[in-house]
Amino acid sequence: MTLATRTQLISPFYVVEILGQVEKLEQQGVDVIRLFVGEPDFATPPAIIEAAKEALTHQSQGYVNSTGILELKQAIAERYQRWHGVSLDPNRVIITPGGSMALQLAFLATLNPGDEVLLPEPGYPCNKNLLHTVNAVGVPVYLEADQGMQLTLDALEKALTDKTKAVLIASPSNPLGSVMSKEQWQQVMQFCQQHSLQLIADEIYHGISFDGLAPSLLEVTQDGWVLQSFSKFYGMTGWRLGWLVAPENAVEACERIAQNLFLSSPVLAQQAALVGFQPEVEQLCFDRVAEIKRRRDFLMQTLPALGLNILANPDGAFYLYIDISAYSKDAKAFCADLLEKAGVAVTPGLDFGGPNPDSCIRLAYTVGIDRLQQAVDRIEHYLKTLTA
Amino acid sequence: MTLATRTQLISPFYVVEILGQVEKLEQQGVDVIRLFVGEPDFATPPAIIEAAKEALTHQSQGYVNSTGILELKQAIAERYQRWHGVSLDPNRVIITPGGSMALQLAFLATLNPGDEVLLPEPGYPCNKNLLHTVNAVGVPVYLEADQGMQLTLDALEKALTDKTKAVLIASPSNPLGSVMSKEQWQQVMQFCQQHSLQLIADEIYHGISFDGLAPSLLEVTQDGWVLQSFSKFYGMTGWRLGWLVAPENAVEACERIAQNLFLSSPVLAQQAALVGFQPEVEQLCFDRVAEIKRRRDFLMQTLPALGLNILANPDGAFYLYIDISAYSKDAKAFCADLLEKAGVAVTPGLDFGGPNPDSCIRLAYTVGIDRLQQAVDRIEHYLKTLTA
Repeated sequence: MTLATRTQLISPFYVVEILGQVEKLEQQGVDVIRLFVGEPDFATPPAIIEAAKEALTHQSQGYVNSTGILELKQAIAERYQRWHGVSLDPNRVIITPGGSMALQLAFLATLNPGDEVLLPEPGYPCNKNLLHTVNAVGVPVYLEADQGMQLTLDALEKALTDKTKAVLIASPSNPLGSVMSKEQWQQVMQFCQQHSLQLIADEIYHGISFDGLAPSLLEVTQDGWVLQSFSKFYGMTGWRLGWLVAPENAVEACERIAQNLFLSSPVLAQQAALVGFQPEVEQLCFDRVAEIKRRRDFLMQTLPALGLNILANPDGAFYLYIDISAYSKDAKAFCADLLEKAGVAVTPGLDFGGPNPDSCIRLAYTVGIDRLQQAVDRIEHYLKTLTA
Repeated sequence: MTLATRTQLISPFYVVEILGQVEKLEQQGVDVIRLFVGEPDFATPPAIIEAAKEALTHQSQGYVNSTGILELKQAIAERYQRWHGVSLDPNRVIITPGGSMALQLAFLATLNPGDEVLLPEPGYPCNKNLLHTVNAVGVPVYLEADQGMQLTLDALEKALTDKTKAVLIASPSNPLGSVMSKEQWQQVMQFCQQHSLQLIADEIYHGISFDGLAPSLLEVTQDGWVLQSFSKFYGMTGWRLGWLVAPENAVEACERIAQNLFLSSPVLAQQAALVGFQPEVEQLCFDRVAEIKRRRDFLMQTLPALGLNILANPDGAFYLYIDISAYSKDAKAFCADLLEKAGVAVTPGLDFGGPNPDSCIRLAYTVGIDRLQQAVDRIEHYLKTLTA
């Protein structure tokens, strides 16, 4: 019996391969510095853990409304007011089982088979694969180093065809860490309106930015789609909870899709996540962001001196996207070698696409500065062996 | 900006409409007997709740493998050995965020746009809608009362076209409660092999059956797809945890899809669900099944005397599908009236399709016998007003 065609189109991730190599090395007793997974090293805040225990004792763990519990939708809407000065109807907030499902929901609501979506690259590798699940097509729009890895309207324009239906932009970006300014959102939104395109903003790293809060697409339009997650800022990766802000006229359709696609998001996670909006828990999360910023600053001060060129301005998330062309044009081999010889695990650019994946790596700074110092020392030593 | 075509194809559920009416009545102080939602009235077993609290204290809530934690896959495989005498490679078990996502995963792995799937009707209303998410098409195969609502190969044969790609069968069935025998599974599997069709078994009500364990498709073939859920038997509806057993040759593709579609299933739910396989917790769940059986027996003894004809043999799940044609040919109006005048909430057949949805209702016996007695009294009184 043959499988669906899309099973041949959905690519595996190199990061999974690296994970296998890392685990093998660690089992052999090798000390590996893990800088390859997109997961903060901070555990779920204690107050959220405690709230979950309370909910287990006192609240039902049965089905709830497919679009989520009302208090949580209200807390999210209220945060947009507080963070972005945007008034948002809580009904437009659809709670989802993780940010991936928020993206899937936006795709299902907007895309017909064959529709094309413009994807700035390098970008999050799941996007293209997820488009295959709805039989749509991701069209890469390359971000060029000589443009500072900034998205230009020119590049978008060139990628347009009569099948283009949407543009998907992440801010802060994975793997670049770059952040869209309000002006940039405005420009892209105008472009989308001009060409009747849906604009989908991936804001799952929101909260984790180093130069004030990253502007939300909601600050410039109420007609776009915004997806979000509790995973990164609130340290709730394994809980699988996210949300989608849909345009008013799409809310009812999204609700129908949600009823069929996932019925209900994890209830305990919803009950616990509510606590994340309390001032002291939010402060704890921002304190963590301050620590993440210190790590970034440390790496920005040390890596370029090694001849490693950091692409874009990494003003958010916890990634550096690094040009290694001074040392290698085969990032996959470089990563395998760096792991084996120096015990430092990073991800090759191949997972993220873009114009030069073979000469780029992604470094996730999800360990403390002491450990990062060790990593820098090891990388320096390894690079010396290459030029020796 | 127009939405995707599928947003017009995905139908809403009448049960959601009923929920709205019920909540309105209850807010007015009306006592409503709720027999309309597919959720057992038993809370999550205390041992599972306690295990979750323990895990919150001692275990990480970060990402885990996309296909689930190994111990859980092993416990599930071991249960197939214990319950069905089937030896199953744990790698074929893919943990999913709820049974819906297990079905979605099976669809994504097997169906191209335009492919047709044969769906016995009356059946679970999400199936047809979920098929729209992958741009495939559900083709109803009517179960007829004069055949005892049994699926026949004849009926399957008649529905075949050159686009038919799969058959999806639920056992125990929602809304019928009927159970496939091992011989029936064998016959349908042979039919599928003969016509090169994928066979997908929805076994999410497994464990809840009254005449011994319902046979699993895995007892007759290793080439089919089996979907399951922790929601019903283990009383974990709001936790969103299920699993898919995939054929060997599809496991790797399913893993790639899972990585992109949902990344990871809820971790706490996985850690807690492990306890469900302990003998004393499993026994508690079977004690609950015995109680569900007593309720069914009570209704089977009382409803037919009121001129309400119970269709099929309800040997599993917790539903009766009832022919009300002696009283009404407009089940939707009947349900609205029964709710308003008698305070009994059931679901009209329209949600489940089939040959005669307008003269059928589904009753979910998810309340205790005292309360069911009250419901029967109210229904009897209401029916008398119709014939008065």
